[in-house]
Amino acid sequence: MTLPMTVPAPGLPARVRIHEVGARDGLQNEKSTVPTEVKAEFIRRLAAAGLTTIEATSFVHPKWVPQLADAEQLFPLVSDLQGVELPVLVPNDRGLDRALALGARRIAVFASATESFAKANLNRTLDESLAVFEPVVRRAKDEGAHVRGYVSMCFGDPWEGAVPLPQVVRVCKALVAMGCDELSLGDTIGVATPGHVRALLSQLNEEGVPTDVIGVHFHDTYGQALANTYAALQHGVTTVDASAGGLGGCPYAKSATGNLATEDLVWMLRGLGIDTGVDLGHLVATSDWMAGHLGRPSPSRTVRALSHKEQ
Amino acid sequence: MTLPMTVPAPGLPARVRIHEVGARDGLQNEKSTVPTEVKAEFIRRLAAAGLTTIEATSFVHPKWVPQLADAEQLFPLVSDLQGVELPVLVPNDRGLDRALALGARRIAVFASATESFAKANLNRTLDESLAVFEPVVRRAKDEGAHVRGYVSMCFGDPWEGAVPLPQVVRVCKALVAMGCDELSLGDTIGVATPGHVRALLSQLNEEGVPTDVIGVHFHDTYGQALANTYAALQHGVTTVDASAGGLGGCPYAKSATGNLATEDLVWMLRGLGIDTGVDLGHLVATSDWMAGHLGRPSPSRTVRALSHKEQ
Repeated sequence: MTLPMTVPAPGLPARVRIHEVGARDGLQNEKSTVPTEVKAEFIRRLAAAGLTTIEATSFVHPKWVPQLADAEQLFPLVSDLQGVELPVLVPNDRGLDRALALGARRIAVFASATESFAKANLNRTLDESLAVFEPVVRRAKDEGAHVRGYVSMCFGDPWEGAVPLPQVVRVCKALVAMGCDELSLGDTIGVATPGHVRALLSQLNEEGVPTDVIGVHFHDTYGQALANTYAALQHGVTTVDASAGGLGGCPYAKSATGNLATEDLVWMLRGLGIDTGVDLGHLVATSDWMAGHLGRPSPSRTVRALSHKEQ
Repeated sequence: MTLPMTVPAPGLPARVRIHEVGARDGLQNEKSTVPTEVKAEFIRRLAAAGLTTIEATSFVHPKWVPQLADAEQLFPLVSDLQGVELPVLVPNDRGLDRALALGARRIAVFASATESFAKANLNRTLDESLAVFEPVVRRAKDEGAHVRGYVSMCFGDPWEGAVPLPQVVRVCKALVAMGCDELSLGDTIGVATPGHVRALLSQLNEEGVPTDVIGVHFHDTYGQALANTYAALQHGVTTVDASAGGLGGCPYAKSATGNLATEDLVWMLRGLGIDTGVDLGHLVATSDWMAGHLGRPSPSRTVRALSHKEQ
């Protein structure tokens, strides 16, 4: 299999933890609903490929996300995996109850940096939505869980356009203050560019949010995700979200959300000599297998290129 | 139309010249042959979108590149364009004669950094191929033309794997010594990552090849082109090759060559506040129009995203 030549660049982290979102964020945004046993097998294969943080599912009401309505059935099928963290998304107290009852030890809440998205997604103001998350985060922490706070629309918003940095910083600080162990800065509509990424990270540092609690979550809507990731690595970020095979971002659908493909990320990190623990060939084979279940080719350029070579 | 927020990053050039290769490198690698008058219209539309260096065609033998067999007919249809440079590729003395006879003032030769590719592409050793280019470059210079030297396979080669930096440097130095005004470092198989890009640029500088004669030509085969471009910009590179709509790199074809899409590049540069003179909306409309002629959607993520929004 073709692999990049390893040539490190100065000032980058030695190791990056990939937060794999394909099974949750990816499948949630795919048209077809995947059978529970296929999801479980997918998560097992991702773990076998070397991924150590695999977001498994979401305990939202099935009415809102029918693709993940099987969270209760799925989680016990994978919770025995050793050496793998399995975060789950919870929207509220009821979701947290369901997740904790199944033994989930990593919880994620999904906030927004903009009023418009809070309104559209949760039908709440930004402050109301933060007020809902506060007791959820506190209780999760009390139960000993690790909590990640997603912050969507950190760079642009389909209704509001460019999002001012202080607005993003305010939400990030609020999430850290209520107890989140980690943030995931989401470029939900994929508009960010590297200077914008640097500026937000610097601003967060200046306002007391250290780089080691920050993960980045880029979308490839405009092809910018890896350049933005490189800028984030140069700033010292060591947690990067990605979706195996680019799940959730179908190049044939106009509504592509465009998650960064884990394979494209692993290619770059391997070339840079940054350790991820992931076996690229194994991961590509997993995404190929899932693409077969979804009945369409993967949007990941690396998956397409390497699948070609292996045929 | 959605556009990125402009947030400059420190240490980057104020302006980048995009060397647009869609009409030559793009169409040469497309399956369908485009009518001459459509090519001329394409070049005129690219110029109207603000591109100032548009590689127009190639004076190779039609037997080798039938898609560009109409070079003699095409060039006079566009050579009246004001404020636009129209480089043409010439493989040898005969090609140079044909180009000069039509008034071409910018010439490009296509060399390789590897023996395998020189052998496969030209059936010559590397030194033999350089010996063929030498009189071509010298005569073009004597005629007052500007000469660009393409160096393909600068990062990896399908037969040889990773390409040692000294080998690339040797070919680059030879091309500069014979009179090339500009180099284009090609990642023909798309395997490069940002550290590798930095290392090659530094090595070239150390060996006396200054950054201001260096252009970069990245392919998106593994999705790395923009991250590599960002690394090159950080090194001070101000000439970047790209192909409108990602022509020549079809995501649906297994044989995708994967040229960096000009739109994806312009998105990043605009976000970084780097002047290109290009109107993104106009360029997207041009690529949409050409995609119609080719009968398939553009592989550029930016084209797909913005076409969607305009529908």
